[in-house]
Amino acid sequence: MSLLLFVALAGYQIAYRINQSAVVGIILAGIIVGPSLLGLVTYTDFVSSLAHLGAVVLLFTIGLEFEAKEITKPRYFLIALSGAVIPWFGGFYLATLFHFDFNASVFIGTALTATSIAIIANVLKEMGKLQTLPAKAIIGAAVIDDILALLALSASEGIVSGTFSVGVIMATTAKAVGFVGVGILTGRVLLSRVIQKFDETKLAIKYPESIFIFTMMVAFLYAMMAEFVGLSAIVGSFLAGASFAGAKLKHGHIFKEGAEYLQIIFAAIFFVSLGVIMDIRVVSPSLVWFIVALSAVAILTKVIGCGIPAKFQGMGLKDSLVIGLGMAPRGEVAMIIALIGLNQGLIRQDTYAVLILMSLLTTIIPPIIFRNWIFKR
Amino acid sequence: MSLLLFVALAGYQIAYRINQSAVVGIILAGIIVGPSLLGLVTYTDFVSSLAHLGAVVLLFTIGLEFEAKEITKPRYFLIALSGAVIPWFGGFYLATLFHFDFNASVFIGTALTATSIAIIANVLKEMGKLQTLPAKAIIGAAVIDDILALLALSASEGIVSGTFSVGVIMATTAKAVGFVGVGILTGRVLLSRVIQKFDETKLAIKYPESIFIFTMMVAFLYAMMAEFVGLSAIVGSFLAGASFAGAKLKHGHIFKEGAEYLQIIFAAIFFVSLGVIMDIRVVSPSLVWFIVALSAVAILTKVIGCGIPAKFQGMGLKDSLVIGLGMAPRGEVAMIIALIGLNQGLIRQDTYAVLILMSLLTTIIPPIIFRNWIFKR
Repeated sequence: MSLLLFVALAGYQIAYRINQSAVVGIILAGIIVGPSLLGLVTYTDFVSSLAHLGAVVLLFTIGLEFEAKEITKPRYFLIALSGAVIPWFGGFYLATLFHFDFNASVFIGTALTATSIAIIANVLKEMGKLQTLPAKAIIGAAVIDDILALLALSASEGIVSGTFSVGVIMATTAKAVGFVGVGILTGRVLLSRVIQKFDETKLAIKYPESIFIFTMMVAFLYAMMAEFVGLSAIVGSFLAGASFAGAKLKHGHIFKEGAEYLQIIFAAIFFVSLGVIMDIRVVSPSLVWFIVALSAVAILTKVIGCGIPAKFQGMGLKDSLVIGLGMAPRGEVAMIIALIGLNQGLIRQDTYAVLILMSLLTTIIPPIIFRNWIFKR
Repeated sequence: MSLLLFVALAGYQIAYRINQSAVVGIILAGIIVGPSLLGLVTYTDFVSSLAHLGAVVLLFTIGLEFEAKEITKPRYFLIALSGAVIPWFGGFYLATLFHFDFNASVFIGTALTATSIAIIANVLKEMGKLQTLPAKAIIGAAVIDDILALLALSASEGIVSGTFSVGVIMATTAKAVGFVGVGILTGRVLLSRVIQKFDETKLAIKYPESIFIFTMMVAFLYAMMAEFVGLSAIVGSFLAGASFAGAKLKHGHIFKEGAEYLQIIFAAIFFVSLGVIMDIRVVSPSLVWFIVALSAVAILTKVIGCGIPAKFQGMGLKDSLVIGLGMAPRGEVAMIIALIGLNQGLIRQDTYAVLILMSLLTTIIPPIIFRNWIFKR
């Protein structure tokens, strides 16, 4: 734990020195101490648990900045859909071009559909751009994109294993959409009122911290339910955060600050773990060009797939570019997809490493572009 | 995680209803959901890790309230020493009287040496008595008592496992006192300056949260080193907290608040785990009288053991009684000692349950006496 926090601190130092976002610095510090270079930290169950906890808390605090209605606009659906389909075909086509077999190509395409809300939301937050229109579009579309990536994953598994059926895909869709719908509805109608009532009880007056505990309990409950229906846990905790975003509390207002502080420690560990999880030594030199090409395709297809619908919806060129680039990081979502493929024997170890590195590159490059060109003052 | 927090919340509700400290309510809630009654939560590795983390963070935040010089007055040492030795003999003698075997008797005596800083500090704070002379004596002696209890614990482990030797105890004492001495010195001379310097760096100005990460890193580092020399991790994190207690920071002052919030969530989980790990079904009716007698002995031996030296140091009768009663709660410290004994197979489940119940009773009774008789207005 001490070592993980030391690495995080070194990450802040790196971020400060290279004038990049703290996220990038911390991931780089993770790579340096991980098996790729120094081998000081390995990805144990303990690190994994803390990192998972960090991702859940991070998305909860980001959820706290958005009311559900802000991010559930139908037009974000088009951005998400186009931003999933185009990268899928881009990845699939590139993989076949590099003589990957059909199964691996399907999985590479699927990994490209994902979007990591965690990373880009944190970068936007660091830059103070979270309340801008493109930021809202990115977050809204990224939540929808998580559902689409889940569907693409179960479709791919079906195609590769020869058990593809429309019925299964429909059921998966129903479960995921049902969870998000019910989650948002419960949040807006029930939870936001429950917390207001709770705030007026004598219990909350005597122990304001009980409201903080209550909100974190809901965050983890939502995360668990999201995983139960096959979505990533962070979509659940994000929705839980959004449920409490509008709460105006007299006594329990401290819960927002509390979540923020939890996030400082555990999100840092999450970002360290992203660096630690990958062992860049397993990549053979022959794969380097494919990784570079795949990462380029991954970023370009998101810029095109998300940026063009945004432009058609009347946004400016710069805002559309911000949305496209903002959707480009694959982060932990693509890593999870790759891990599922590896565990089920659908992709080989080297394909897995390729996907992890693609995730890393697409995660590090957009924040650098944001900081140095787009939001440069 | 969600379930653990729900239990903690129920604990607050119980504490509120029975008008007791939140700690007591949360432990009771833990007993209810644990194997004793409902069997909803079991003591898994995950729960254990989080609880351990909670104990470290809890003692760190307590450390933050005391500067090292306040708690290192020689005269408090006599109160602490007499308040550890007399309860040890009282507990040991009572246990042998009730036909406990030698090993269990040694551990029962050891558990009685402990004093809970957290509980006393909270009670005194609630009553607005934190700045009184007896309050400072209680806190100072309680800190020393923690160290004595840990020495008593390692002596007991040696006696019970047959590896006891004066040399080993001397070495343990030397290591423990050495660690505490070096820890306090490093804290006062080095860490308190490092954090002030860190606070003025551009890194801290840009990322104030990096100071929070730094302090938590030190907390876990001290905890790890304390365990390394054979002390409990919490002594280390307490000293780390005391090192930063006097820090007056411009940018990183948020770290105290941050630690407080971490503590809310993880200490709650720690207290839940204390209830969950105990299976009260193993307490046979024949043990009830022993528990009552042990709790009475536990309180009386602290009143005598701490009160008399205080009286001899020139304090009034009432102040001496306040000090004695204030040192009586065993709280989480005795629970940790009991847990160590249980995990190492040195005591049985029923002895463990007896000690937990004794901790609860000694924690509940003194505040009631304070509230209804001593500080009655």
